[in-house]
Amino acid sequence: MKALRFDGKRRSVQDAVVPRRPGEALVKVLRAGICNTDLEILKGYSGFKGTLGHEFVGVIVEAPDPSTVGHRVVGEINAGCGRCCQCASGDSRHCPDRTVLGIKGREGAFAEYLALPPTNLLQVPDTISDEAAVFVEPLAAACHVLEQVDLDQAAQVAIIGDGKLGQLVAVALRTSGCDLTLFGKHPQKMDIATRTGARCVPVPEANSGFSRQFDVVIEASGSPGGLPLAMDLVRPLGAVVLKSTYHGGALLDLSKIVVNEIRIVGSRCGRFGRAIEMLASGSVDVSPFISARYELADGLIALQRAGEPGVLKVLLQVSTN
Amino acid sequence: MKALRFDGKRRSVQDAVVPRRPGEALVKVLRAGICNTDLEILKGYSGFKGTLGHEFVGVIVEAPDPSTVGHRVVGEINAGCGRCCQCASGDSRHCPDRTVLGIKGREGAFAEYLALPPTNLLQVPDTISDEAAVFVEPLAAACHVLEQVDLDQAAQVAIIGDGKLGQLVAVALRTSGCDLTLFGKHPQKMDIATRTGARCVPVPEANSGFSRQFDVVIEASGSPGGLPLAMDLVRPLGAVVLKSTYHGGALLDLSKIVVNEIRIVGSRCGRFGRAIEMLASGSVDVSPFISARYELADGLIALQRAGEPGVLKVLLQVSTN
Repeated sequence: MKALRFDGKRRSVQDAVVPRRPGEALVKVLRAGICNTDLEILKGYSGFKGTLGHEFVGVIVEAPDPSTVGHRVVGEINAGCGRCCQCASGDSRHCPDRTVLGIKGREGAFAEYLALPPTNLLQVPDTISDEAAVFVEPLAAACHVLEQVDLDQAAQVAIIGDGKLGQLVAVALRTSGCDLTLFGKHPQKMDIATRTGARCVPVPEANSGFSRQFDVVIEASGSPGGLPLAMDLVRPLGAVVLKSTYHGGALLDLSKIVVNEIRIVGSRCGRFGRAIEMLASGSVDVSPFISARYELADGLIALQRAGEPGVLKVLLQVSTN
Repeated sequence: MKALRFDGKRRSVQDAVVPRRPGEALVKVLRAGICNTDLEILKGYSGFKGTLGHEFVGVIVEAPDPSTVGHRVVGEINAGCGRCCQCASGDSRHCPDRTVLGIKGREGAFAEYLALPPTNLLQVPDTISDEAAVFVEPLAAACHVLEQVDLDQAAQVAIIGDGKLGQLVAVALRTSGCDLTLFGKHPQKMDIATRTGARCVPVPEANSGFSRQFDVVIEASGSPGGLPLAMDLVRPLGAVVLKSTYHGGALLDLSKIVVNEIRIVGSRCGRFGRAIEMLASGSVDVSPFISARYELADGLIALQRAGEPGVLKVLLQVSTN
């Protein structure tokens, strides 16, 4: 099969072995999406080598339970050991021995086929298109914020970052009725974010009267300047949610955290249920977030495009159903 | 009156004006305690200039309500504007215009007299000695952790730092029944901490089997190595509480916070009620934490002593009742 792979230095579309794993389902990939985490892996984040990609929709072609063959599915990306207390509680997201699709110890979704445990796969309702289904994983990650911080209609919330993650966080948080302000850098992206109901402010204007104004600030820019800006925007006793994974450290004024009693909350993957509901009900339209579509064979161009300024989601068209 | 002052460069015991403030009480200081924050101010933290000190017990000598004159009191150190929504809610700890005793815009406690609003002053029960009463403020700050993170008997908790703050946090957290491990550097201090019921481990042994073992880690060492160690000790989905204020920044691996979904919680001042109860009931004995006593006139020697390795609380004997 064809796969878009990274060997730690070079990226290439090449022939690869179909990744069958005992007890797991084999999924024929229909569409996949390029996430910033994929681009960070190319810079060294996580040390991953192999087939990239973790956002996808596909069709089960082999499975321990033959009745599931033919199901159109999306997949939660963390596959646990099945034995530890995390896995026993039904949540493998923090299993210490987990593999993660296209990120850690498991071949990813930028390929004709991928393998995942059947418990990771969720059938996609017919009302969700293939392209929209690719957004289930990142939308679930965005919705996860709702489980981590208390948001009500009175909450003043800032999102830093007008990229695909920031946009999806805006979509997810809008459901809480909170007051949303998104700080961005690209006029075109901010135009799109405005449709989510968020007030959009260019980052250079963030220092004009926004200091200490927000109960919750979501850092979704993945840039080194994001956290210092978040620390400036958040009010005393407020929360800063870190959504972006990126390669590198950040210098932090710890006294500010202590004196203002700020909470900093790391946020990664979400459960898929709420995201599937949002997309199935039509309450969320992700089509404005799609910037480009490429065939898997053009994966290198797709990766390059995904890293260009002003570009939101780039999709890979892998197979047809 | 005599006062131990810092002008941004030099420290000295000198004559100073009695700090009367309209609408406030004047307190004759009996005993005061040297906190690490005082030592950090001498290194540049907070930019404070004036009379140092914020831990004290004293007697009201002048007050808007004359019936309170003669009361032996301790004082919450944040004095709010009285008009903002924080102050209106009865909690001036995060008033943006607050002054803070001996830390920000208000002459401190290392002096014969200090001024505070009457609402900041709490009468001390007779069962609490003058020396024990000096510990109300730092013990309240330690108890504040109990309001910020959920701790039950099953919780595995680590404290980093065997200094006076770490010791008081151990005392405060012991009341929750949680399982306590204190990581320290000084054998003598760790001996004292053992009496609180904490298991004591020398910091160099922290890398032996303790990684990702703790639900909650309290950073109370005030040293640059404290937070990285805390990040190693805390389990995924766990919390790191930052208790120390110190001058300088720290380099942080943000991806670790995101991937393991760690919460970092800043923690500063606590309300005094619980600490007064603990001391009044005799359930807490702070006498092992007192390393030395000096007269106010010997304040410079006292400051030097407080910064020496192995030293816990240094008290200033200012007046007698």
